[in-house]
Amino acid sequence: MTEKILASWKDGPARQAIVDFVTAVTTPGPAFVEPADRIATFDNDGTLWVEQPLPPQFDFVFRTWAQEVKDDPSLASQQPYKALIERDPDFFAGLGSQDPKVVETLLEAFTRSWAGTTPEEFDAQVREWTGTAKHPKLDVPYRELVYRPMLELFELLQANGFRVFVCSGGGRDFMRVLAEDTWGILKENVIGSAAAYTYADGKLVRSRELLGSLDLGSGKPEHIFAHTGRLPVFAGGNADVDIEMLQSARFALLVNHDDDEREFSYTRGAEASLAKAAESGWAVVSMKNDWATVF
Amino acid sequence: MTEKILASWKDGPARQAIVDFVTAVTTPGPAFVEPADRIATFDNDGTLWVEQPLPPQFDFVFRTWAQEVKDDPSLASQQPYKALIERDPDFFAGLGSQDPKVVETLLEAFTRSWAGTTPEEFDAQVREWTGTAKHPKLDVPYRELVYRPMLELFELLQANGFRVFVCSGGGRDFMRVLAEDTWGILKENVIGSAAAYTYADGKLVRSRELLGSLDLGSGKPEHIFAHTGRLPVFAGGNADVDIEMLQSARFALLVNHDDDEREFSYTRGAEASLAKAAESGWAVVSMKNDWATVF
Repeated sequence: MTEKILASWKDGPARQAIVDFVTAVTTPGPAFVEPADRIATFDNDGTLWVEQPLPPQFDFVFRTWAQEVKDDPSLASQQPYKALIERDPDFFAGLGSQDPKVVETLLEAFTRSWAGTTPEEFDAQVREWTGTAKHPKLDVPYRELVYRPMLELFELLQANGFRVFVCSGGGRDFMRVLAEDTWGILKENVIGSAAAYTYADGKLVRSRELLGSLDLGSGKPEHIFAHTGRLPVFAGGNADVDIEMLQSARFALLVNHDDDEREFSYTRGAEASLAKAAESGWAVVSMKNDWATVF
Repeated sequence: MTEKILASWKDGPARQAIVDFVTAVTTPGPAFVEPADRIATFDNDGTLWVEQPLPPQFDFVFRTWAQEVKDDPSLASQQPYKALIERDPDFFAGLGSQDPKVVETLLEAFTRSWAGTTPEEFDAQVREWTGTAKHPKLDVPYRELVYRPMLELFELLQANGFRVFVCSGGGRDFMRVLAEDTWGILKENVIGSAAAYTYADGKLVRSRELLGSLDLGSGKPEHIFAHTGRLPVFAGGNADVDIEMLQSARFALLVNHDDDEREFSYTRGAEASLAKAAESGWAVVSMKNDWATVF
């Protein structure tokens, strides 16, 4: 391996563990992994890009919800529209802890917003957002808030015969637009929570039904297997909802958000995964100490 | 293009239409298709391999059902076990016409057979079958009954930047084993009807629930979009249940089984697709006239 790989990573146990693992699985010997089995899967929010103060998809949907409240003022007294208008962070914090009532309410609103749209219409809405929306604290477009060290990790894995998939609880169709434009990952390599589409009269239209389960927790290895026919050899995540995916992989990488200066410092929603990492010997990435460059 | 491409195809309108289309979509001009959009999808039974007298997956499941009847003789009076014991072709013919009652009864039996198995157990059963099972009329292993001209078409498409997917009403997990071993297609490029799996205690186990809809009719473009984020540019099929997939593609290829000498001659279950092909100008492949070699 040349010096150029993982250029934004500082020397340290995380970088070393990655390089050692990739070398072992591609070298004939007991840890060798057949090329067909080399699947790598990564969570998105907080693993590939910033997820504070809220996953960016919320910024995207808030614009739609604001318009919906304008069109139908009776929504203003209902959740999640009420929380949006009152800027109530506690309501959305329920997301991190996977409060079922909050998740259900949000899901209902998400599916309502885009029922009836075609893929082309939805993609255009996402592209309009990525072209204009900025992060409230960091004041740069969200699309620039992708972690450069993770893109370099994709390159290293792909150069070693891995197929890289994104696997996130977030909206599959939202991520697919970003995936090709920003991460260099084809749409078909993005796995996520999704609405069912109906094909009729030569047209695909989004329904209000969820397709299968949410891509969170044990849903992650389930979705990964359904999509790829395999469980991952390499997996990366940053939160408690990633635990099952990380457990299902041969090598697990957990991103720890401890860099309040360049990004954010928090462990909320990641307490169990950090404990599990210590217990299971997963590679933990300190954003502060392991990454020379974040973006 | 060199002379070696599509070597088992005779010169004729089908071969010419394929070559013209592939040239047009890869040449700068009005028909050019961006590499990211180059998705090709193919039905399996009757398009990639023999589907008469029954799709080969039935031969596979019949062995399991025979064992189940031995273990529980009360099943012998119920469908589909009764039809299997009585060798009743009329019952299974309901499949071709998509009789909902037949499909439901079969689905119930299929899901019952493998509920509780792990992916490793199921793959081993498929590999044991492919290693031993022979076609009743052609007397060769099923795995040798893949159409060589279609594998050459895969090569041509892949050489021109297409990602090739198999998309069939058949069992996704059954096809995935064959896909890598026989067609050179990775498991993640196989789309099909599938059971949901549950991940618990570090293990994936097959449930009795179907994951989403059957991958037939309008289900095909729905499954293709869910899996890839796109509709196909090139699609190949051979039956009425492929019509929607073929309609959703820029270029549609329909295999017509008119070769009783080397394979089978039939139009049952393909009447509407043949009419649609004539109406829409799809490329129709005559197995008898367009293929110099079948297997």
